[in-house]
Amino acid sequence: MEVVNDVLGYQNLKIYQNTDMFQFSLDSVLLANFVTINPKVYNILDIGTGNAIIPIILSKKTSAKITGVEIQKESFKLAIKSVKINQLEDQIQLIQNDIKEYSQKLSTETFDVITCNPPFFKINENSNVNESIYKRIARHEIYLNLEDIITISKKILKNNGRLAIVHRPERLIEIIILMKKHHIEPKKMCFIYPKIGKEANILLIEGVKNGKSGLKILPPIYTYDTNGNYTEEIQKFFS
Amino acid sequence: MEVVNDVLGYQNLKIYQNTDMFQFSLDSVLLANFVTINPKVYNILDIGTGNAIIPIILSKKTSAKITGVEIQKESFKLAIKSVKINQLEDQIQLIQNDIKEYSQKLSTETFDVITCNPPFFKINENSNVNESIYKRIARHEIYLNLEDIITISKKILKNNGRLAIVHRPERLIEIIILMKKHHIEPKKMCFIYPKIGKEANILLIEGVKNGKSGLKILPPIYTYDTNGNYTEEIQKFFS
Repeated sequence: MEVVNDVLGYQNLKIYQNTDMFQFSLDSVLLANFVTINPKVYNILDIGTGNAIIPIILSKKTSAKITGVEIQKESFKLAIKSVKINQLEDQIQLIQNDIKEYSQKLSTETFDVITCNPPFFKINENSNVNESIYKRIARHEIYLNLEDIITISKKILKNNGRLAIVHRPERLIEIIILMKKHHIEPKKMCFIYPKIGKEANILLIEGVKNGKSGLKILPPIYTYDTNGNYTEEIQKFFS
Repeated sequence: MEVVNDVLGYQNLKIYQNTDMFQFSLDSVLLANFVTINPKVYNILDIGTGNAIIPIILSKKTSAKITGVEIQKESFKLAIKSVKINQLEDQIQLIQNDIKEYSQKLSTETFDVITCNPPFFKINENSNVNESIYKRIARHEIYLNLEDIITISKKILKNNGRLAIVHRPERLIEIIILMKKHHIEPKKMCFIYPKIGKEANILLIEGVKNGKSGLKILPPIYTYDTNGNYTEEIQKFFS
């Protein structure tokens, strides 16, 4: 069901979404709060922007120009409505296209920062025959896989530009190998744990194009406390 | 100063050590409690065993034969005394040699598990001109670097055998690249944080020779609580 909600943690921002998409939003909110945005960031790209949640949150952190690219018409429509209701049309540009096609039109070294909340699963992995094609594209690497994201980012990031991804920890080794292969040096990571005593279930990782080696592991984040309620750290995204 | 202490968390075990070596011991205790030891483990190697802290702790978890190799005479003497005071001479074999030389005499596929608390720093990194040669060898990659450990382990581990290392998080990317290069698949990691809100300062990582991909990030461990005391999790190593 399509609804309009406050953006987690930002009561003055609105977002159009489907009521069953919360988990995706939390991943995106975590990523938008993790990525390094400094005053020298002028151009940001969000690959697979969905309902534009990442560009909308980033608009509160920077005056940089933000481009969101989304292949799916349904999500793109939500993104357009979300940007409009927040009157962010001047800062956020939305493109309905396949990023593989769109990136070919761009000159190299265009962006200071690229964010991406990509499909987490390989094709045929965790598949559900009842799943809509819409959800399958968002969850599975049908149109876009990890190496696509990293090769495209390598090309269109400025030198020392940053790529920040949210993903599943199971894919960490593959992400690191691909980043190194394409000269994007992993510089910081953060692991999110569902609660104390459990293994991590979300990974945040940021790499720098042609960066020097040297990695920081940020303090861990827990989603739920021992009573099963959201932790204060997560609650602040709702307040 | 040379003293004999209880092994952290095992009052019935004794260890000879220098009073200024605690930090190294905590790293080793964490590693010995992290490494996967199952009933099918018959042969364990500890590279750079120091005062044999890792073999001595592992003797409580397994009846496997444990070999500790130490290049430095001073540490080797402590190891001999430590093994003897615990009457572990039948289970723990100690070798004073360079592992690079010693491993050449071994047949391939000898060990089920290899542990290593290696020198953390590259040569000339974090160097201190007043440091003894003894400490420099333990702290810096003078005789043994990361790729040595991994190539040696690849050779003498059985198929599906495990290599477990404690290191600094800054070196994680390098460790992963080298493990993958030598077909040791990283399967589990754990990050240790000095206290809440701080970046990780210790990394535990275990890989499986010719293993399938699939990584678990274990729950984080904190060293100190908000009052500056050891956390319960660390205190249990002292009790």
